[in-house]
Amino acid sequence: MKSVEELVKKIIKFRDARNWKQFHNPKDLALSLSLEASEVVEHFQWKSEKEIKEYVKTNKDEIGEELADVLYWILLISHDLNINILDTLDKKIDKNDKKYPVDKAKNKHTKYNKL
Amino acid sequence: MKSVEELVKKIIKFRDARNWKQFHNPKDLALSLSLEASEVVEHFQWKSEKEIKEYVKTNKDEIGEELADVLYWILLISHDLNINILDTLDKKIDKNDKKYPVDKAKNKHTKYNKL
Amino acid sequence: MKSVEELVKKIIKFRDARNWKQFHNPKDLALSLSLEASEVVEHFQWKSEKEIKEYVKTNKDEIGEELADVLYWILLISHDLNINILDTLDKKIDKNDKKYPVDKAKNKHTKYNKL
Amino acid sequence: MKSVEELVKKIIKFRDARNWKQFHNPKDLALSLSLEASEVVEHFQWKSEKEIKEYVKTNKDEIGEELADVLYWILLISHDLNINILDTLDKKIDKNDKKYPVDKAKNKHTKYNKL
Repeated sequence: MKSVEELVKKIIKFRDARNWKQFHNPKDLALSLSLEASEVVEHFQWKSEKEIKEYVKTNKDEIGEELADVLYWILLISHDLNINILDTLDKKIDKNDKKYPVDKAKNKHTKYNKL
Repeated sequence: MKSVEELVKKIIKFRDARNWKQFHNPKDLALSLSLEASEVVEHFQWKSEKEIKEYVKTNKDEIGEELADVLYWILLISHDLNINILDTLDKKIDKNDKKYPVDKAKNKHTKYNKL
Repeated sequence: MKSVEELVKKIIKFRDARNWKQFHNPKDLALSLSLEASEVVEHFQWKSEKEIKEYVKTNKDEIGEELADVLYWILLISHDLNINILDTLDKKIDKNDKKYPVDKAKNKHTKYNKL
Repeated sequence: MKSVEELVKKIIKFRDARNWKQFHNPKDLALSLSLEASEVVEHFQWKSEKEIKEYVKTNKDEIGEELADVLYWILLISHDLNINILDTLDKKIDKNDKKYPVDKAKNKHTKYNKL
């Protein structure tokens, strides 16, 4: 299995071969990220909980590919903006740990600012 | 720096401490992914290319945190659906390599089905 | 109650007073539309069907305002691109009528291309 | 040209003929609204300002149809939640008028909470 670093290299190589950096301004990259996220959502539109339980079993590969498309843009944007995304996520979880104290947040789906 | 596997463990530990798995059905997880992607986009709304160039320098941390929020959901959904997301991305890039042949796609932002 | 035409006039007057047309390129307008749609979605995140039933009663005004924000951008974009949106919707429903024939689509949430 | 009220009636008639109300819970309706908004955005992805200027002329009908799809969901959700969307928008513009005072907001794309 490739590491995140190796995947980023592969992504950049793919882009450079097509000379696509010229199109990759942050606004369009973010917008692409959002469009791919919508394609993940689309898999679950109109389906009941029961239908989804079945669907995720029989369509794991398709859903996986849409998630990969989102990850693709996260890694590319992070690369271009020189963000260490794994480190940032690590710290963000620590932040959330404080934003959502266990004793207040347990068993609740309330947003931190309303806890 | 933590590996993706370690981050996934940390995310699941964070969730379990709050007993939040009960809320994490695929539809709401996908929807959360999409909402966080929108927050990335929001950073670039209304800004000109020139303003964005400046903005990404002075707001790297904020943008990084939003990207981390998106990554958080990707890792969590992939975990719950038992998807190896790094492997899937690796193979997706290979697929895109064929969908966008260099000689046809070079210097063009056209979608593969219109190339 | 104002008509759609009167609302469009009011929106343009609001914009002109602030000299905001300079920011209103189609890409940012579309992106704004999408961001406001996300704010509608956010109201329903994590909530169960039962919770939502209660929520839509007690939060009708808030949800209505988010919907109005989406409508705002639809009317503004349509105005700027010189699109008669009511007429277009009228014709689109006729198109959908053919795309989703009653005998095939009844009681199904399947997309037209899979019916 | 049909009025908004007539369009709503047409939409409900279209739905009832297919017996689709059973699928129309607020979460999926909001999600559909958001997915259609993404399809509007998709038209402008990767395109430069110059390309967009040309594109909106030659693709007015396609863009109009996507906007109509968004409007469709706005009218349907508003109907189901018993929201007078035209009235709500009218009042929302008045609210925005106060949130963005002309003397502070003129020529700026700053969000109201940072003005």
